[in-house]
Amino acid sequence: MEKITSMKNPSAKLLRSLKDKTAREETGLFLVEGQKMIQEALNSGLALHTLLAEASCESFARKFAPEDRCFLTARSILESVCDTRTPQGVCAAFSMPAPLDLSLISGSIVALDGVQDPGNVGTIWRTADAAGLSALVLGPGCADPLSPKVQRAAMGSGFRVPFLSTENLPDALAHLQKKGYVVVASALDGTDFYAAPRPGKAFALIVGNEARGISAEVRSVANLSVRLPMRGGAESLNAAVAAGILMYALTEPCD
Amino acid sequence: MEKITSMKNPSAKLLRSLKDKTAREETGLFLVEGQKMIQEALNSGLALHTLLAEASCESFARKFAPEDRCFLTARSILESVCDTRTPQGVCAAFSMPAPLDLSLISGSIVALDGVQDPGNVGTIWRTADAAGLSALVLGPGCADPLSPKVQRAAMGSGFRVPFLSTENLPDALAHLQKKGYVVVASALDGTDFYAAPRPGKAFALIVGNEARGISAEVRSVANLSVRLPMRGGAESLNAAVAAGILMYALTEPCD
Repeated sequence: MEKITSMKNPSAKLLRSLKDKTAREETGLFLVEGQKMIQEALNSGLALHTLLAEASCESFARKFAPEDRCFLTARSILESVCDTRTPQGVCAAFSMPAPLDLSLISGSIVALDGVQDPGNVGTIWRTADAAGLSALVLGPGCADPLSPKVQRAAMGSGFRVPFLSTENLPDALAHLQKKGYVVVASALDGTDFYAAPRPGKAFALIVGNEARGISAEVRSVANLSVRLPMRGGAESLNAAVAAGILMYALTEPCD
Repeated sequence: MEKITSMKNPSAKLLRSLKDKTAREETGLFLVEGQKMIQEALNSGLALHTLLAEASCESFARKFAPEDRCFLTARSILESVCDTRTPQGVCAAFSMPAPLDLSLISGSIVALDGVQDPGNVGTIWRTADAAGLSALVLGPGCADPLSPKVQRAAMGSGFRVPFLSTENLPDALAHLQKKGYVVVASALDGTDFYAAPRPGKAFALIVGNEARGISAEVRSVANLSVRLPMRGGAESLNAAVAAGILMYALTEPCD
């Protein structure tokens, strides 16, 4: 297995560049850190481009990646490539997944309108996976789904639940509506969720920006605007918590 | 209004020390940052000890705090005192709230068994407030409820929902049980929450450590162990998201 000993090595430079969204878009690659996440990416059928491992992870590298795509390297170089402060000893560049085709899905989905915090985007992705949703749709202004922070918070769900980034979220939602989806907006001035009718079929739940909520343009597409009741003194819920409560409540039949 | 110009000023040193849990415990004080949070603390009846403001917040300081407890200071000193990287221009030390007396409450509560992440503790506190719960009980190993990070994530709910830190969580839960509470553990190997019976009266929901879950000792007290179904490939939910889904589902009647 070839060794990388210089920070200036072209493969090290390529992987290091993937912290930046523009570089990810230009190369079509994104970075995955740690053994568990790399295995999840491989299990989901993503194509491995280049893997960097320190000595402690050499056997993992040999087991899971073709030798001509693996490099052994020093901790200092791994630290310069990874987004985490204390990397787990291995990271890899993968080809980005193919964008989701909305016309091919049938299950319920969650759509993000300007959700900026990478932790919120990743946590919502993870919850969507747990709740059994079929896709994540991201409108403009969202944290980049292929950024290390989003993928870390998604804990592997980013490889399992397909996603689509779109510049035109109202159009994407209208497309789903034509297929029979009920579009549900989560909004502080919506009707009480627990008194509102349940979609009864596949839904697209819209989650808005942490401070501004859902834009008027996106909201105008919704069939239904709902809010979770605020019974105490809190003015709102964390975006990922509110999304989680709604995703589970929308998919669970009441008995 | 007196001015503080030295980092070594005793009031500046006192407030700076409050980043540290031991200093908070020794002084009985904790730090609150920003106009909104200081107002929330005052509204909830907490006693203001010392307020530090830069010039832009002088009128706020004059309006809300007695002059002999206010100091004007430079940005650099404010930055050294505050936990946030870019402080909002004002911070204040408050006396810690009196610990909650469990024998005096009657509404449902949430109990944390070793929830370590300050963001999770604060977010659960905020959600408990929104869901209308009556108290937060923290067992050993939890993030300190009066740390700046927890209070920031709680967004004011830390002043509204009373809390109790206890070294003996099983005892606290058993005390509530004697009062008629149903103790519900959230556990990955519990029974399906949506198939389980609903408490029907006041409940104490236990949320466990992010990695290890609820300890055997705490769990042995529970009347009921429930898990949220994992329908996709995710192995678990974020602790604050799971707590939020359960708090709302337990307090909302199904129709």
